Amino acid sequence: MSMMAQIEQAMAQPFSRADAASAPPRLLAAMRHAVFPGGARIRPQLCLAVARACGNDAPELSQAAAVSIELMHCASLVHDDMPCFDDADTRRGLPTVHKQFGEPLALLAGDALIVMAFQTLAQAGVSHPQRLAALLLGLCEGTGAPDGIVAGQAWECEPRVHLGQYQRAKTGALFVTATCAGAQSAGADPAPWRRLGDCLGEAYQVADDIRDVMGADQLGKPTGQDAQHGRPSTAADLGLQGAVAYFRDLMASAVASVPTCPSRAALQQLVLMESERLLPQSACDQIERQQAALRRKAVA
Amino acid sequence: MSMMAQIEQAMAQPFSRADAASAPPRLLAAMRHAVFPGGARIRPQLCLAVARACGNDAPELSQAAAVSIELMHCASLVHDDMPCFDDADTRRGLPTVHKQFGEPLALLAGDALIVMAFQTLAQAGVSHPQRLAALLLGLCEGTGAPDGIVAGQAWECEPRVHLGQYQRAKTGALFVTATCAGAQSAGADPAPWRRLGDCLGEAYQVADDIRDVMGADQLGKPTGQDAQHGRPSTAADLGLQGAVAYFRDLMASAVASVPTCPSRAALQQLVLMESERLLPQSACDQIERQQAALRRKAVA
Repeated sequence: MSMMAQIEQAMAQPFSRADAASAPPRLLAAMRHAVFPGGARIRPQLCLAVARACGNDAPELSQAAAVSIELMHCASLVHDDMPCFDDADTRRGLPTVHKQFGEPLALLAGDALIVMAFQTLAQAGVSHPQRLAALLLGLCEGTGAPDGIVAGQAWECEPRVHLGQYQRAKTGALFVTATCAGAQSAGADPAPWRRLGDCLGEAYQVADDIRDVMGADQLGKPTGQDAQHGRPSTAADLGLQGAVAYFRDLMASAVASVPTCPSRAALQQLVLMESERLLPQSACDQIERQQAALRRKAVA
Repeated sequence: MSMMAQIEQAMAQPFSRADAASAPPRLLAAMRHAVFPGGARIRPQLCLAVARACGNDAPELSQAAAVSIELMHCASLVHDDMPCFDDADTRRGLPTVHKQFGEPLALLAGDALIVMAFQTLAQAGVSHPQRLAALLLGLCEGTGAPDGIVAGQAWECEPRVHLGQYQRAKTGALFVTATCAGAQSAGADPAPWRRLGDCLGEAYQVADDIRDVMGADQLGKPTGQDAQHGRPSTAADLGLQGAVAYFRDLMASAVASVPTCPSRAALQQLVLMESERLLPQSACDQIERQQAALRRKAVA
């Protein structure tokens, strides 16, 4: 089975458990809408790839860790899309959860997905008690205060923001959780895997900023939102060309950071594929051509 | 130290950990506002009382379990107070979190408190790996789908609701978590303690419904909300006198359910005190007198 097929199958498991006769049906439907169909599932892919690189001696645990991280990511998208934040109408080309089910169920679906993430990890942890606490703490670190994705989102409500701190928390934190959880679920030291998560997470956010300015988003999200909401943005800070150069640096660092292991080449290939998906080489070249033309025009 | 003083001190600990220099200050302030000053802290009291009844051989674990349950309760209040649900202006006599900090931070503070609850449990669980998974699963059961407090709240968004199912989930579930976690954190079987949580939780919800109708709430919450929001209510279903009788039955069952243990009398005393706090005997008597007068008037 391909890794993506394995992830989709694994993502469905907690829903079959939650779908008891006693569950409020619309809540469950809203939760499913938030999770299926999925996006690139890059965080769980990353988690599983690192677990394999570390021997993956407890595949049910690495799978649960991967699912829990993706559930947390989906929960954050539901809440970030709500009217008090992005007020987004669409996500992955479909109506956002609050557009489809209303605000109350969007709020609750996000909450229930957070709980489901921990539940998934705890259930797999019953057979691996010695690894459970560290995995949990990693998931909490990537999501809560002071430095997780919720804290990252909360920086948008502060009068002064440090761009790097904001991006590291808003996106990077859960990527670090993903790479570290891959190692931890296989009983390995997570420390050598932090940098990969860090670089990828920041690159992901930079690519998001660039696409938001370019106005050509293929992920089914509205564009021009950063300026509209006055959000910190690398593209605004460094200019479009500077942001592209920074993105390339981050991706090169991510590739270089992969520790020596039997599947190093495969992991580096995954990173390069993700780089191309996030910001295709052709788009980077186009931006550079446009910027060069602008500079020529300014000189003339 | 009294149990209440111990609880307040314990509730402050996760905040000192979260309050790193890198944390967004307004998020932390909103989280604190949601938790301090506290209400009756009945769930953590219950958890600790059961832990003591079971020998409490790992006091740092029972304390963490108690704190995690109260954090989860506080998170649910923040989200339930928001405009898309109760749209409440005050809670415990102070502005609600969204009134004080705005909707975005209220949404995120609730999310971050949920994560903090799991983090608190995981941190204490590092030294008690064999008990951690069961405690986590109990916390998830009491909060998520299909039967936890989030699911309970979600029943308000369904076209048809079973009153008992709604109340068991909306309030009862976290009381069951509290009594069971007390036992589990002391390495005891939680099964004999379920009924106590069940009865108390339902009684709590019934008392809430009665106070909402009586319009004399001392907890700093607005009244008349159930009818205004079209919510299921025992008082609407059974009438005021029927609801009072039902409350008394539930409290008697709660007292009777306390398993044989050295501190049985003390635990029963706690339940009786809580009964009096929830719905004072004098208020019950007053309701019965009023209802009797109404009946006499109707006959005459």
